[in-house]
Amino acid sequence: MADKKFVEEITAMDEDFAQWYTDVVKKAELMDYSSIKGCMIFKPQGYAIWERIQRLLDERFKKTGVENVYLPMFIPEGLLQKEKDHVEGFAPEVAWVTHGGEEELVERLAVRPTSETLFCDLYSNIIHSYRDLPKLYNQWCSVVRWEKSTRPFLRSSEFLWQEGHTAHATAEEAEERTIMMLNVYADFCEQELAIPMIKGKKTEKERFAGAESTYTVEALMHDGKALQSGTSHNFGDGFARAFGIQYSDDNNTLQYVHQTSWGVSTRLIGALIMVHGDDSGLVLPPHIAPTQLMVIPVQQRKEGVLDGARKLLDAFDGSGIRARIDESDKSPGWKFSDAEMRGIPLRAEIGPKDLAAGSCVLVRRDTREKTVVSLEEAPQKALELLETIQNDMLARARAFLDSHITDVYDYDSFKDAVENKPGFIRAMWCGDVSCEDKIKEDTTATSRCMPFEQESISETCVCCGRPAKKLVLWGKAY
Amino acid sequence: MADKKFVEEITAMDEDFAQWYTDVVKKAELMDYSSIKGCMIFKPQGYAIWERIQRLLDERFKKTGVENVYLPMFIPEGLLQKEKDHVEGFAPEVAWVTHGGEEELVERLAVRPTSETLFCDLYSNIIHSYRDLPKLYNQWCSVVRWEKSTRPFLRSSEFLWQEGHTAHATAEEAEERTIMMLNVYADFCEQELAIPMIKGKKTEKERFAGAESTYTVEALMHDGKALQSGTSHNFGDGFARAFGIQYSDDNNTLQYVHQTSWGVSTRLIGALIMVHGDDSGLVLPPHIAPTQLMVIPVQQRKEGVLDGARKLLDAFDGSGIRARIDESDKSPGWKFSDAEMRGIPLRAEIGPKDLAAGSCVLVRRDTREKTVVSLEEAPQKALELLETIQNDMLARARAFLDSHITDVYDYDSFKDAVENKPGFIRAMWCGDVSCEDKIKEDTTATSRCMPFEQESISETCVCCGRPAKKLVLWGKAY
Repeated sequence: MADKKFVEEITAMDEDFAQWYTDVVKKAELMDYSSIKGCMIFKPQGYAIWERIQRLLDERFKKTGVENVYLPMFIPEGLLQKEKDHVEGFAPEVAWVTHGGEEELVERLAVRPTSETLFCDLYSNIIHSYRDLPKLYNQWCSVVRWEKSTRPFLRSSEFLWQEGHTAHATAEEAEERTIMMLNVYADFCEQELAIPMIKGKKTEKERFAGAESTYTVEALMHDGKALQSGTSHNFGDGFARAFGIQYSDDNNTLQYVHQTSWGVSTRLIGALIMVHGDDSGLVLPPHIAPTQLMVIPVQQRKEGVLDGARKLLDAFDGSGIRARIDESDKSPGWKFSDAEMRGIPLRAEIGPKDLAAGSCVLVRRDTREKTVVSLEEAPQKALELLETIQNDMLARARAFLDSHITDVYDYDSFKDAVENKPGFIRAMWCGDVSCEDKIKEDTTATSRCMPFEQESISETCVCCGRPAKKLVLWGKAY
Repeated sequence: MADKKFVEEITAMDEDFAQWYTDVVKKAELMDYSSIKGCMIFKPQGYAIWERIQRLLDERFKKTGVENVYLPMFIPEGLLQKEKDHVEGFAPEVAWVTHGGEEELVERLAVRPTSETLFCDLYSNIIHSYRDLPKLYNQWCSVVRWEKSTRPFLRSSEFLWQEGHTAHATAEEAEERTIMMLNVYADFCEQELAIPMIKGKKTEKERFAGAESTYTVEALMHDGKALQSGTSHNFGDGFARAFGIQYSDDNNTLQYVHQTSWGVSTRLIGALIMVHGDDSGLVLPPHIAPTQLMVIPVQQRKEGVLDGARKLLDAFDGSGIRARIDESDKSPGWKFSDAEMRGIPLRAEIGPKDLAAGSCVLVRRDTREKTVVSLEEAPQKALELLETIQNDMLARARAFLDSHITDVYDYDSFKDAVENKPGFIRAMWCGDVSCEDKIKEDTTATSRCMPFEQESISETCVCCGRPAKKLVLWGKAY
């Protein structure tokens, strides 16, 4: 394998997964550290993935009637404090603006860690009658949470996300929207990111600050750790009461609205890396890959090669494939490795011999399988291969997930599984937070969710032995 | 005109232009004030216009090789101070973060007012060789400038924009890119926003803090005031020297890079309102209108009307027109006025009589001209009308601009023109900042630019009578 030498700078996954992750992020030029503690720079390759995520997810939001807005990045301290649980959850990690120009501000401003309070303030001004409902607003923005320890895409002091905030006339409608958006996330992740998700409800301990219930989609990374990939919250009328958001119903009676919020962030890029990546770098699912196919001329100085390669590029372009060409003066081997490192799903190799035969070689990033195709058929064949890759990647990720769920019935097995069986653990739980606390302290595993697909696999709580109430998915998490 | 009563809440333009502007912004639901001083809320109708601007402009950027990135929103105080002119220009209006969580920060962080310093910091880390050049980065983000007095879309403490930052091997290349991006802005504004621009160079007094030269596109609002709509700066190697951004050229000699930056903001929405709006509200050019056509059923409770209207909507949709339908329980007259207020370029009225005749009525927002078309031909005819409207709007705006430029040759005429002839004034200038200062003090008019199309319309400076060096475009400005 002559190619190997070009990528040997990446640490092997099995050797040191954390270092492998950092290597991929840096070498695929997804992001860079900045001189501001805990803040990242999204480089073109990383930001382009986020742009694809934004576009595809935004289309899905809009199909459900969601409208985009933009609210200020600052929250006056008094406004942030209006909902007690909420401010307690966020105050410790807020960045505070105290001066504007030369002057000290009368009231400190929080740089938004999340915007529930601002949306509530807006809704209290613009919602009057049942005719004003529902409000289905979303914004794409950055938020700031002052983190002590940070990690590219997974945890940083500033990150990019979307936050949807809705207001409804009834509790039923709010619950329906909460679940609807969780399903939008799960479908998006499966169909576009090729990442299967487990959907479930968070325990009270893991709930969002101020929410009545929090739902989550949880994914499994290649090292067996869980990644909370998106959450959807039902606030009931708690915020509405704190902010006085009322409407007159069709009997002219004042009622409080019921609210939801839901969000995903640039964490999803971390998930893409850790679910699909391998020892040669990133592997991007075709639907989300900014570049789906790289044309790589071989012996490009020979007459006709560059011309032929460019014609091929045009043909791919014309079929709607996001294709590029690498005309740099590097060797073909270097270019192959580089395209692999960047996770480009397909490459098309074309040299003098291929041209003479009227063909090119399509090489899959995920399996490295090579297919010789005629130049005429290349675009159609590439389109088919891209769909095949997309489907195969999801199938492999699903098989990995399915084979990394361990059912356990007693506490010794639980502790053994956390140590020795990477992945999720399914075990029954009594419903008491003290068992969650004990499990976390003993093993560092946390309750990821109570999956929607509940069943009783044992009569007793895996921790305390008392009667079990819920099936819980446990795991170490990012 | 039965419709009139629905829009009489808007102040007439000629009566009070500022109030008309505020009315349109509020009634067309483009934005709302927030509880944070000087910060605006972009409501769905306003944000949707920004999304269209983003998408169309971003495509144009990318065609010139620009890549999107995202840099942190915070700038350490020390970094902001590295380029002397730059920090002097921005320090008075910076919002400062002093605390993260409970802790006071060792170094204050500015919320970015613009990101030259961050891009320089990045470029100093990633540019080493001539092979790394050019760097053509852009970001879409929000910035904060602590403004005393604010106005929707035109001036606010936080606003949305894009900022492009490029680094080049040579001064020539940097200048070429500076002009290229100014042309991208001018073309975009003309072709998509239907707003003709005057391109020119800023005088030294009006130059961006830290730039060697600043170029601008200036538009004329309906009240005769100018709006600086986009700027493009050539920094020479000033920032490169302050930040130590060097590359080794092909002789292995260290050289400083040459840099540019360029930006447009949500001000462009203000320009759209003030160039095209009328006493019935907003008038949006079809290319930028989030909704291009509103189907309005008349007597919609009569059998078959809603069905027919929805079929018509599907037909428009199928032709790629961004169409919607107003099925609310309001009267047709209210719906007509509402669609006009929101500036939707075309409406399709369809009632029982139209359906019986197999036709509908297309009504232009800009001229109110009505066309009866068969249902079959409606989509094709609508597409044609949308292009006609786009072209006519640009032609009208251009005619308005052309008829509002006054050439003057002496100072009394200058003062008279500022008072009595709304629009731009063309007059010669000696090149001395004291004349600019005097003109501003005497008349409030400022030098908008030295237009690219220079000619000598007089031998002497309009202010001091000394020999003239440059033709300058003057005007009152937002």
